[in-house]
Amino acid sequence: MKINGRPYRTIWPVGDAVEVIDQTKLPHEFRTLVLKTADDCAQAIKSMTVRGAPLIGATAAYGIALAMRDDASDEALDRAYGMLLATRPTAINLRWALERMVKALRNRPRESRAAIAWSEAAAICDEDVQTCRAIGEHGLKILRDAAARKNGARLDVLTHCNAGWLGCVDWGTALAPIYMAYDEGIPIHVWVDETRPRNQGASLTAFELGAHGVPHTILADNAGGLYMREGKVDLCIVGTDRVTANGDVANKIGTYLKALAAKDNDIPFYVALPSSTIDWTLQSGDAIPIEERSADEVLKITGRTPSGAIETVEIAAPGSPAANPGFDITPARLVTGFITERGVCAASEVGLRSLFPK
Amino acid sequence: MKINGRPYRTIWPVGDAVEVIDQTKLPHEFRTLVLKTADDCAQAIKSMTVRGAPLIGATAAYGIALAMRDDASDEALDRAYGMLLATRPTAINLRWALERMVKALRNRPRESRAAIAWSEAAAICDEDVQTCRAIGEHGLKILRDAAARKNGARLDVLTHCNAGWLGCVDWGTALAPIYMAYDEGIPIHVWVDETRPRNQGASLTAFELGAHGVPHTILADNAGGLYMREGKVDLCIVGTDRVTANGDVANKIGTYLKALAAKDNDIPFYVALPSSTIDWTLQSGDAIPIEERSADEVLKITGRTPSGAIETVEIAAPGSPAANPGFDITPARLVTGFITERGVCAASEVGLRSLFPK
Repeated sequence: MKINGRPYRTIWPVGDAVEVIDQTKLPHEFRTLVLKTADDCAQAIKSMTVRGAPLIGATAAYGIALAMRDDASDEALDRAYGMLLATRPTAINLRWALERMVKALRNRPRESRAAIAWSEAAAICDEDVQTCRAIGEHGLKILRDAAARKNGARLDVLTHCNAGWLGCVDWGTALAPIYMAYDEGIPIHVWVDETRPRNQGASLTAFELGAHGVPHTILADNAGGLYMREGKVDLCIVGTDRVTANGDVANKIGTYLKALAAKDNDIPFYVALPSSTIDWTLQSGDAIPIEERSADEVLKITGRTPSGAIETVEIAAPGSPAANPGFDITPARLVTGFITERGVCAASEVGLRSLFPK
Repeated sequence: MKINGRPYRTIWPVGDAVEVIDQTKLPHEFRTLVLKTADDCAQAIKSMTVRGAPLIGATAAYGIALAMRDDASDEALDRAYGMLLATRPTAINLRWALERMVKALRNRPRESRAAIAWSEAAAICDEDVQTCRAIGEHGLKILRDAAARKNGARLDVLTHCNAGWLGCVDWGTALAPIYMAYDEGIPIHVWVDETRPRNQGASLTAFELGAHGVPHTILADNAGGLYMREGKVDLCIVGTDRVTANGDVANKIGTYLKALAAKDNDIPFYVALPSSTIDWTLQSGDAIPIEERSADEVLKITGRTPSGAIETVEIAAPGSPAANPGFDITPARLVTGFITERGVCAASEVGLRSLFPK
């Protein structure tokens, strides 16, 4: 997608390193960062310089490639795998990408591993773009139908966190259909949950929708329930970090509350995902590890001062502690359907297996 | 209640004016402000220098008293009534307090109106303290029972926004039972929703609980649903700005989402209120006007810099608009019970009328 008219992906090779958009600086500054080693990649994932389940997977894949460039031994491969896997616990694409890299490399001669790893990481990125485009096309049909029911009135879609192109390599998952709907002239408007505590909605989703020209309005996370009751939301689309075999959804903290409100108001609630996000090994969302992040993310916030400086301020009562779970589980019963690269299915094992048979 | 060991109310007479705690400065600075005129009182309510339904009513009452001090004519009374009533649309205590003042003054001689108004405003404040104490005592029984079921384990209560003593004259509504439970040795812990966009939870509730020594932890508003699913919340207590005859509840934006999550997880959800919060004239919450506040409250936030300065920073993508509804409606079906100054009742017209007959 474009920033200031220039097309970007979120991650791209540069020489024998990779470059990424530093998402911790958005929306205040647009800055890129060169990742030169596997350590750099792990640090970028951990610090959320890169975030979003598909982009985490892509960055980890390049982490393996950079490790192989420096040392193509089995030990180095295992070490890089372990280090990168430990960066974040909830998103499953991370493990998926790392296992794919290891599988591509394990039985290959050392001298060819660096080149294989590099092209495998590039393939993961290219496939992610294709996958997101396909998710967009399948989701677009849902938006076209919803728009038709509005008879030309504005179509209001609510999303939580950032499941746009900044969370992927390009296009996005939840936002891909929205971009396509906007591009074909559907009068679409997006309610953007600010998504505390890291505000990926207000900072990243609003930024990328704005850069593309898609009409949108930021809401405090608290507001979506009222707007659903008032008929101001036609449907919800969110992304996910892991879907279990039964259709339960791990996604950014707060997703569950919006799914409850959608159910209470008979509003469709869709989850968009590449199939790499499905964890067939887990039978229920209760088994997904929930990342606990730093209390500082709740107690402090970074923004622009009137003079344009970037400043971090403490916002809570001094001395009060905070807890900061990063994700929650939305039970499958609250999900209207999954939008995948192979089409739309029910949020259930039967639904998922109808598109992705064993 | 106490701040730094000194007992305070949120509003108190000083000479022929009234003094209040400037709640827009909390928790960063503790500052009081003298309100010298009815205009000052209206401005204090509008700017949220004072907030919380009972305290808004008390401040408006003193606003009438200050107007009568300056001009005890019927015209001045009507003017002050209209100006103060227009400050905020959702809380019903405002209208209740103003109507009580007008009723006390209307047919009285002009020369005695200033004195009558002053003592009526003081009576409203004193009665609010008594009412909140009674709410605390009735709510305490619920907390004792809940604590007994925990067999000595920590009792976890979730609250939203600030319905503590800072929102009343003293004690609070939702927090009154919590203070009493803490004081009698119940091992209570409070999950404090930060309550975006104005963060009254993180700034005011955390501040007043901390000042009293009550163990608490701040959560992003998004986190409560997960914690309920995980069994980390035993019950919820919130305040309200208006309850309609059928038991629907207007409260700070986001309350509805927590009530949905409590219902989905079989967790009791109580609303604490003085009977002055009941609007018998409305049959349903859908008729309550919802205040739309400035987008700046979502797009900017004020905090302390590392050097201790108070700074306001912009936190969202530049140019992205925001919407900011201040309250939402929680349907009576999601409310376990009302805790009032006369006892606990069901969230229904029958329930309310059992305690407050016509």
